[in-house]
Amino acid sequence: MIDAAPDLVDRARQGDPRAVARLISLVEDASPALREVMAALVPHAGRAAVLGVTGSPGVGKSTVTSALVAAFRAAGRRVGVLAVDPSSPFSGGALLGDRVRMQEHATDPGVYIRSMATRGHLGGLAWATPQALRVLDAAGCGIVLIETVGVGQSEVDVAALADTTLVLLAPGMGDGIQAAKAGILEVGDVFVVNKSDRDGADQVVRDLRGAIRLAERAPGDWRPPIVKTVAVHREGLDDVVSAVDKHRVWMERGGELDRRRRRRVRDEIEAIAVTALRRRFGDLHGDARLDTLAEKVLAGQFDPYAAADEIIAAL
Amino acid sequence: MIDAAPDLVDRARQGDPRAVARLISLVEDASPALREVMAALVPHAGRAAVLGVTGSPGVGKSTVTSALVAAFRAAGRRVGVLAVDPSSPFSGGALLGDRVRMQEHATDPGVYIRSMATRGHLGGLAWATPQALRVLDAAGCGIVLIETVGVGQSEVDVAALADTTLVLLAPGMGDGIQAAKAGILEVGDVFVVNKSDRDGADQVVRDLRGAIRLAERAPGDWRPPIVKTVAVHREGLDDVVSAVDKHRVWMERGGELDRRRRRRVRDEIEAIAVTALRRRFGDLHGDARLDTLAEKVLAGQFDPYAAADEIIAAL
Repeated sequence: MIDAAPDLVDRARQGDPRAVARLISLVEDASPALREVMAALVPHAGRAAVLGVTGSPGVGKSTVTSALVAAFRAAGRRVGVLAVDPSSPFSGGALLGDRVRMQEHATDPGVYIRSMATRGHLGGLAWATPQALRVLDAAGCGIVLIETVGVGQSEVDVAALADTTLVLLAPGMGDGIQAAKAGILEVGDVFVVNKSDRDGADQVVRDLRGAIRLAERAPGDWRPPIVKTVAVHREGLDDVVSAVDKHRVWMERGGELDRRRRRRVRDEIEAIAVTALRRRFGDLHGDARLDTLAEKVLAGQFDPYAAADEIIAAL
Repeated sequence: MIDAAPDLVDRARQGDPRAVARLISLVEDASPALREVMAALVPHAGRAAVLGVTGSPGVGKSTVTSALVAAFRAAGRRVGVLAVDPSSPFSGGALLGDRVRMQEHATDPGVYIRSMATRGHLGGLAWATPQALRVLDAAGCGIVLIETVGVGQSEVDVAALADTTLVLLAPGMGDGIQAAKAGILEVGDVFVVNKSDRDGADQVVRDLRGAIRLAERAPGDWRPPIVKTVAVHREGLDDVVSAVDKHRVWMERGGELDRRRRRRVRDEIEAIAVTALRRRFGDLHGDARLDTLAEKVLAGQFDPYAAADEIIAAL
């Protein structure tokens, strides 16, 4: 490390974008310095509202995110955007193809935008994202948007990291079915029907209403609102911000915000513990030991549970 | 359990579909009986060729899979199809929407089709899929196709479980970009351009050729072929089978098949060990202990690494 951790943390708290970038790189690299960094950040975190932004490719996720950033900025809030790429096993860096749409905010000191690749990681999304969120939170971002690059499982997982999850759909994509498949209908706190000036938008809204009606809810449970936007023309974004704020008020009133945040930290602690244990498998045995066990299983001499027992016993 | 494990294993090896179904349900339920079941299956596994079938929604994945099953059946091979659904957190059962296309094979005793939900699971895809594969393998399926329901991350992960990964694309879907985003271009051993009677198919082939050219390869490395199909009319499937067979010959010659299978078993052993350890976190501490630690982190009194240390120390 070029910079000492406490100094970096101080500079990040003052909003120095280079210090923030450096700290998130430490997360990306699973640096040993993170332990010290997180201990220094923890007292200064917990203020940011964390919004997950999910949806199939083509619904306009980046355009909506960018327009939301503008709406939050107009309200004077500092905004962080974390684009997480858990899907690229070999590139070793987050893909930035879509990020061009975010460039309008590139020179705004009140906006911090960062892509992060987590796929190389032992612990993946669950390990890295909460730590990167904590960096942005401590750096004074009152709102942090998490957007995943890629689709599917990570879109669902991001909901476990967010206070409020926005699920985006658009007409003409067969999205009703796709969204249901990926399980993202169940995780939506606010539904955004983007490109709502196109044919079929009302049908998407009707389908969503039906799906929301079908979901079992107790009295007092949150009923996800549906907001129509044309993000490319900046239409409807204030309604999205208003729905997000309402959801936050509901969460604070019923204790749901505390529950979600506790769950997030529990998952983070568990991911750190599991990652540390998996590293020990490697440290103890080296690759050769696990290879030898795998060979025995392949040869039919050993079953995988007995092999796992050997690994655990040696810890 | 109604049936004793050894009896179930015997019946599954004789190809009894009810016994196979019961064993895969044990995997789905993470049954304690699995240890005995896997020990009994291991000597009889290792013969199946495992094909992963991946691609974005709408490329015709189910139609291609169904047509491939027909092509393998025509060659007299017994076929297993495992549709894994790692994306539905709450449904508690695999979504079978697409499976209707597989119904033509429902009455063929040489075809075993099974959906499996893994999302509720501690270990997920990496834990459950190798064990379900072993059931189908020991039951005499010479070919096992793994198809994931849903898109994105699981599409990439499935490649780690397969001997040969088929990546499906189709014209008119912006798939070139989507595929690159999800990282599935890197994991394709055979590329299938389906719906190749439609406009734009040749462009998809050209784009793929370009992407394949861009990938770094050493001399002797496998160069993924591109096969055009119209699966709905059963066109081109023999070419897919031939490409798969060629890939297998290449893998056997260079030792790649052994490497991939060893990696798969290593991952399985590790997933079993990690799952067992995560269960112990719960057994040792109960939810309350982890909650208490999470509360301390949220209050800024404790950092998540120190919390993870406490969990590990108590193991």
